Amino acid sequence: MSIALTARAGGLDRLHAATDLRGRFRLPAGVVYLDGNSLGALPAGVAEVVADVVHRQWGNRLIASWNEAGWWDAPTRVGDRIGRLVGAAPGQVVCTDSTSVNLYKAVVAAARMRPGRRVVLTDPDSFPTDLYVTDAAARDAGLVVEQVSPAAAAARIADIGDDLVLASYSSVDYRTGELWDLAAVTGAAHAVGGLVCWDLCHSAGVLDVGLDAHDADLAVGCGYKYLNGGPGAPAFLYVAARHQDDFDQPLAGWNGHATPFAMAPAYVPAPGITRGRVGTPPLLGMLALEAALAVYDGLEVTAVRERSLSLTGFFLQCLGELLPELAVATPRDAERRGSQVSVRHPDAYAVVQALIARGVVGDFREPDIVRLGFAPLYLSHGDVLRAAQHLQGVIGDRDFEREEFRTRATVT
Amino acid sequence: MSIALTARAGGLDRLHAATDLRGRFRLPAGVVYLDGNSLGALPAGVAEVVADVVHRQWGNRLIASWNEAGWWDAPTRVGDRIGRLVGAAPGQVVCTDSTSVNLYKAVVAAARMRPGRRVVLTDPDSFPTDLYVTDAAARDAGLVVEQVSPAAAAARIADIGDDLVLASYSSVDYRTGELWDLAAVTGAAHAVGGLVCWDLCHSAGVLDVGLDAHDADLAVGCGYKYLNGGPGAPAFLYVAARHQDDFDQPLAGWNGHATPFAMAPAYVPAPGITRGRVGTPPLLGMLALEAALAVYDGLEVTAVRERSLSLTGFFLQCLGELLPELAVATPRDAERRGSQVSVRHPDAYAVVQALIARGVVGDFREPDIVRLGFAPLYLSHGDVLRAAQHLQGVIGDRDFEREEFRTRATVT
Repeated sequence: MSIALTARAGGLDRLHAATDLRGRFRLPAGVVYLDGNSLGALPAGVAEVVADVVHRQWGNRLIASWNEAGWWDAPTRVGDRIGRLVGAAPGQVVCTDSTSVNLYKAVVAAARMRPGRRVVLTDPDSFPTDLYVTDAAARDAGLVVEQVSPAAAAARIADIGDDLVLASYSSVDYRTGELWDLAAVTGAAHAVGGLVCWDLCHSAGVLDVGLDAHDADLAVGCGYKYLNGGPGAPAFLYVAARHQDDFDQPLAGWNGHATPFAMAPAYVPAPGITRGRVGTPPLLGMLALEAALAVYDGLEVTAVRERSLSLTGFFLQCLGELLPELAVATPRDAERRGSQVSVRHPDAYAVVQALIARGVVGDFREPDIVRLGFAPLYLSHGDVLRAAQHLQGVIGDRDFEREEFRTRATVT
Repeated sequence: MSIALTARAGGLDRLHAATDLRGRFRLPAGVVYLDGNSLGALPAGVAEVVADVVHRQWGNRLIASWNEAGWWDAPTRVGDRIGRLVGAAPGQVVCTDSTSVNLYKAVVAAARMRPGRRVVLTDPDSFPTDLYVTDAAARDAGLVVEQVSPAAAAARIADIGDDLVLASYSSVDYRTGELWDLAAVTGAAHAVGGLVCWDLCHSAGVLDVGLDAHDADLAVGCGYKYLNGGPGAPAFLYVAARHQDDFDQPLAGWNGHATPFAMAPAYVPAPGITRGRVGTPPLLGMLALEAALAVYDGLEVTAVRERSLSLTGFFLQCLGELLPELAVATPRDAERRGSQVSVRHPDAYAVVQALIARGVVGDFREPDIVRLGFAPLYLSHGDVLRAAQHLQGVIGDRDFEREEFRTRATVT
């Protein structure tokens, strides 16, 4: 059976050879890295760019680099490069701050764009920072938060009617990897005059998100998962062009001012997406992210999605054959699957540690999830089979019962 | 006369030899860099640390670095290192976000700490982002902003009385370099039950700020000026230990949660200064800043201040002899002087450009300020004299009338 799977993996790798871009990454040998949805791998060329930023741009050219190295425009320039991957025409995405900070801006700005309305809808199973920030922004903006699953959101929105300010949803569930139909949520929100905000942390770079095509209003996402920008890479904020004049965000820092160097006493927001900026951008991280995005040069995100579905689909096949009893938390239907496969196990934490000891790096999510992310560009179907075989080994050999795998680290 | 100044410079450099730490920096040859109050120079060792973060910590160890390389605790660890330089005992400073974002947190949190009060006081001549963010936070928190010079603040605070929420002031004026008596403002604010927030952007690393000693409540500052953290280095936030339980800041991101990896549905702020965190920290910039702070190892900030005053004092002497007609905007009294000397000139922009062409790098600030920052650790009295001589040359030779120096760049 494993021989058949090996042959299958080889065949699929030949079929998808055009999107095998592992050569564009610097991964350690002997590792199957299934955690690119937590921290993307290091792309080739990034270290060289960062060294140039430090030695030449900063060390040698000092403040002259604000102009001559394009530091000042980096947030919108990098934003446009991200925009291409999430289906946003230029001028609608800015690279800035963290996802949490950008979501705060989006929720408060949405409240101001829909005065008199009160309800923000979000997913009870959102990544927690989305819940925390939505609650905090709602409190500050005088809104009420309702938690409704994305599957039930459209129906609930119809009930809420013209009291809806914003439906704020992640396109992919960070735990289960379920891909939601945010186009349907968006249609429902627009039908009652409300707005949507899409959280693309688990979609940007691997899914054909299509922000413009689906008439999304606002979106946020991070730079360090599938965009491979490095640890704590800056995040991004999308504001559809039609809303930018009305986008009145609370963090009125000088980088978002119309004339920042005039040092004018009153805040006048810059035209366009620049008003999403706040303070001086974190240039080391932002220029690393810019260099990392070169991985996507010459590549359409539809091709990445195709490879992703092939990898996750094949992994599900492997599990079906090697571990038929295992509970899979991710939908088997390709249309409902992000770029990850999560399985449930009562000893999920120890299973993840035991996998890591075998060179298969995934992560644990409370309460019982073994989460395996498939960053398509640097993974092969051969890697996928190896991961499934090690998972079979960990469970079959009961590795997860070993004490060494059960001690919790600070950050899991 | 210049011979006497040369001898004087040599004598002062011998006198202050113990704090000449230029060897700890990587500065380009032939430049007198007087813009360390805009972007600090590159310290030795930073490039090596950043390369290690990229190649080994990120590229090779991937997510394991969250634990084993101390990524998760970096914001408080680096915060404590900054704390030492601003007179804050450990556990009161966190390195996070930008100054603008941190000021927003501070103003909104202050409003919540003083419910029922309405007035925030700030300086009309503050760096603009302070004005913009204070206005924005006041609007969101239902406060009224009054702009009063720091010199008049104590008297005005006594009038405002128990309606005062917060007096939010920079310790050094970014344009003129005037050092304000924030201890007096703090005493006045406390006398009426109000709070203070000190902006340390132009003080941290060069002045004996003494946050704890002066009973400051809140403070913010940036990492890329005298702390030499690199372009867009993360900023910092100080919350005095006695206020931390009541510090309820609006940007309730998951990094500030008491149990971030429990993925709990409701926000519970972490104990201590950790609640000032928001999203995933910008690690490339933060670890560069941490490496940069090694410059201060074995050094007390009082010694840095002493060297700073000698440098700026000598520069004022040089100006007095070489350019006696020039209007100096910075107080001559050492007690009222930060670590910069600003002069006024009707063609200030062109004067700065002409100085840069001669290898003396300062910057221009609207409307007529030639701003020269003295980062004490990498400047000598010989550099100071050279700068004064070139300024004399630029003005005497009327370099500033040349067209090439009058064309404005994007970022000035």
